[in-house]
Amino acid sequence: MLSAVYSTLPRRFSPTIFNTARKMSTANGTKAPADRSALIPFSLRLKEGRALAQDVWSIFNAANLPSDCINLGQGYMNFAPPQWVKKAAEEALNDVGANHYSHPKGRPRLRQAIKNQYGSQFNRELNTETEILVTSGANEGMYSVLVAFLEEGDEVIMFEPFFDQYLPSVTFNGGKPVYVPLHPPAHSKEKQTGKDWTVDFDELRRAITHRTKIIIINTPHNPVGKVFTKSELEQIAALAEEFNLLVMADEVYDCLLYDDEEHVRFATLPGMWDRTVTVGSAGKSFAATGWRVGWLIGPESIIRPTLAATTRIVFCTNSPLQEAVAAGLEQANSHHFFETQTKEYEERRNVLIKAFDRLGAKYTLPQGSYFILLDISDIEWPEDYPFPDSVLGRGRDFKACWFIAMEVGVSSIPVSEFYCEEHTGIGEKFARFAFCKDIDTLKTAGNRLQGLKKFLVKDGAHQ
Amino acid sequence: MLSAVYSTLPRRFSPTIFNTARKMSTANGTKAPADRSALIPFSLRLKEGRALAQDVWSIFNAANLPSDCINLGQGYMNFAPPQWVKKAAEEALNDVGANHYSHPKGRPRLRQAIKNQYGSQFNRELNTETEILVTSGANEGMYSVLVAFLEEGDEVIMFEPFFDQYLPSVTFNGGKPVYVPLHPPAHSKEKQTGKDWTVDFDELRRAITHRTKIIIINTPHNPVGKVFTKSELEQIAALAEEFNLLVMADEVYDCLLYDDEEHVRFATLPGMWDRTVTVGSAGKSFAATGWRVGWLIGPESIIRPTLAATTRIVFCTNSPLQEAVAAGLEQANSHHFFETQTKEYEERRNVLIKAFDRLGAKYTLPQGSYFILLDISDIEWPEDYPFPDSVLGRGRDFKACWFIAMEVGVSSIPVSEFYCEEHTGIGEKFARFAFCKDIDTLKTAGNRLQGLKKFLVKDGAHQ
Repeated sequence: MLSAVYSTLPRRFSPTIFNTARKMSTANGTKAPADRSALIPFSLRLKEGRALAQDVWSIFNAANLPSDCINLGQGYMNFAPPQWVKKAAEEALNDVGANHYSHPKGRPRLRQAIKNQYGSQFNRELNTETEILVTSGANEGMYSVLVAFLEEGDEVIMFEPFFDQYLPSVTFNGGKPVYVPLHPPAHSKEKQTGKDWTVDFDELRRAITHRTKIIIINTPHNPVGKVFTKSELEQIAALAEEFNLLVMADEVYDCLLYDDEEHVRFATLPGMWDRTVTVGSAGKSFAATGWRVGWLIGPESIIRPTLAATTRIVFCTNSPLQEAVAAGLEQANSHHFFETQTKEYEERRNVLIKAFDRLGAKYTLPQGSYFILLDISDIEWPEDYPFPDSVLGRGRDFKACWFIAMEVGVSSIPVSEFYCEEHTGIGEKFARFAFCKDIDTLKTAGNRLQGLKKFLVKDGAHQ
Repeated sequence: MLSAVYSTLPRRFSPTIFNTARKMSTANGTKAPADRSALIPFSLRLKEGRALAQDVWSIFNAANLPSDCINLGQGYMNFAPPQWVKKAAEEALNDVGANHYSHPKGRPRLRQAIKNQYGSQFNRELNTETEILVTSGANEGMYSVLVAFLEEGDEVIMFEPFFDQYLPSVTFNGGKPVYVPLHPPAHSKEKQTGKDWTVDFDELRRAITHRTKIIIINTPHNPVGKVFTKSELEQIAALAEEFNLLVMADEVYDCLLYDDEEHVRFATLPGMWDRTVTVGSAGKSFAATGWRVGWLIGPESIIRPTLAATTRIVFCTNSPLQEAVAAGLEQANSHHFFETQTKEYEERRNVLIKAFDRLGAKYTLPQGSYFILLDISDIEWPEDYPFPDSVLGRGRDFKACWFIAMEVGVSSIPVSEFYCEEHTGIGEKFARFAFCKDIDTLKTAGNRLQGLKKFLVKDGAHQ
């Protein structure tokens, strides 16, 4: 089980309407016949980043599925942000200044609110000028870190299954993704949790080369729901120190932990503040995925170059919704917002796991995030089931997700999409179900999923 | 007057708290003593893009100037977006779906509104699925085009003075900026307009090499206020065709033209649709610079790769304000919005030019955009005037802008910032004043500017 470096992943790239022929004319005026539909070739980084391939989101797009299919595929809520947070957005719209450019660092009020809300979690007085950066969603924040630190050929380690945006964000900026799988529990294990997905630390060490510059940690983890333990994080920290790595701690699900699980902020481990940038998300925290407000917290030596990058990429983040998020953080404690929200998500999770229990299917009980991995090894479909071309030639999970969506009307996402080709065999045993949906929707989905019972073959007898 | 290629511009880069020392430890474990304030060096692209240098915006930041200084430096409005557009934003906040992820292409309603509003200007039925892309501000849209098309070493031609974000957007993605100056009118010319700033087409042709991939055109032009004539654009089009160039037509001031000037959309010239991406901005169009909603219009062969890029950079643009901009475009005609707004801007422009006329100073009368260039050649300050270090060693315009701000309390922006080092001598004769401010503010600024009369030396006698 070696880690793997891929700069190109041809399997994912299918021919498109575009050619990549070299320029048809040159400075001295010689010309080839013009195909005007593709005059100027797009950059190779799009191919390296799988960016033009048909991805899982377009295959499992609502438009391709039955019209009444319940969407548990994509991780967005079907409920609104809190009323009192939206009210602050409306107030901002009525303030002239809050409709115009913000400072690229983020609006002072929001940076102050982030400092007040999170400073204690980092055991320090955060400097709002140098240690906090508001970004246009967590996604753009992470992209900007990579712009700010990657040189051509630098390697970035990510654990599989990985958030699919990491890959192109790395390759677009000249970096090489290096994949280290989280190892799932044995299929025979009865009750599986996020904790049962483990890091092989020798494997992680072997993945480090003299070109390794960054390691990305995602805790709580999407899609496994694993909350990394302090001991696991300490072992990663020791490697980061030994090999002088920058650590991107993607902690966007930091307010979604269940069963009294403890979220350890990587940056608080001894010595790690200096080399860690922590990623946060208002979309995840306030049920507002479309507001595109995120933030980074870290030392000036990381924040300042990243500010230089984000300033050029987006200039600044939208102003009215920054004000709203500031109000959200300012008032969260008085509304007991995060405690209440966690309980609500725990209830949502429990609706879905009870449905899987009733079904008799195996799954990974998540300690955090809003995803559950269903082990689809035991689901078997008719041999002649009609699958579309888009899922053929992909992992078994693509067929399983398609089958489940068509057969019972609940969509999910195949997990092998979040693995490199070499490790597809690990990912294709799982489908990801999002439970960031209201209880009624989840109950209906849970009832529908019982329709899979007749396709369940115990102990993966199909294999 | 040759065009110039710069990949590094050392003058602009001043030492920072960061070092760029190579890694302090290697995979075999050898270690140098740790300077924990700068463990991991930031990427070289930040230096190449001038991204860590002290830029004009931080030098002429309000915090460095007298507290009652009127800010005509930065191009944002001190008035609000229209009430009926803000109302649509509030409605969107009360729609669950409009608080969550949008499609990376942009919300269907906004794409439809862009098609309806702009299709006729492009003489075609725009395809909302393949020819329109909503971006997180025009800035991020342009950045994404460069991500999608630049390979290491590709050259991008831009006219000076250039919008300062072009430079890092190009170099961050491996490109090389190539600068072709617009030539200002002779100082002796009495009434100068944007038309008097001219392109030397032989010079432009000489700037093209076999690595030239993109040319950026900005019309109406920031900061000159020049509206490129059809004849000028046709000559550029002929070169784009001859050398197979992609044309980025930055037309974000497309709704701000004065004196019945005609805006020619570059993409409508014969053959140019296929190779042109046109950039639009809701911030400029609806006085909402902080909403971060822009768009690109072009052929599928440009839009699809750019969609692949923007999807990875920001994933999508904020949803509620997309809905508001859609409403803005839908209702603009019934409100006679753009006609009224143009008249208002023309009045604002006229307040400032009358002030310059009273002063007896020369300026470029803009036919578009919301900037006026003041010719500062005739302004002379006391030899022993105390200037801060930040403006010393820069163009004469840095001193002039500082002097004007301190002496009469009106801030502006030195134009040499928008030139490469070799061409500083052209830019340093001008200061940029923004008139996207309410009439009262502009009148007060105009009165204050009369205080420069005693420093005016006719015919640049100081030189």
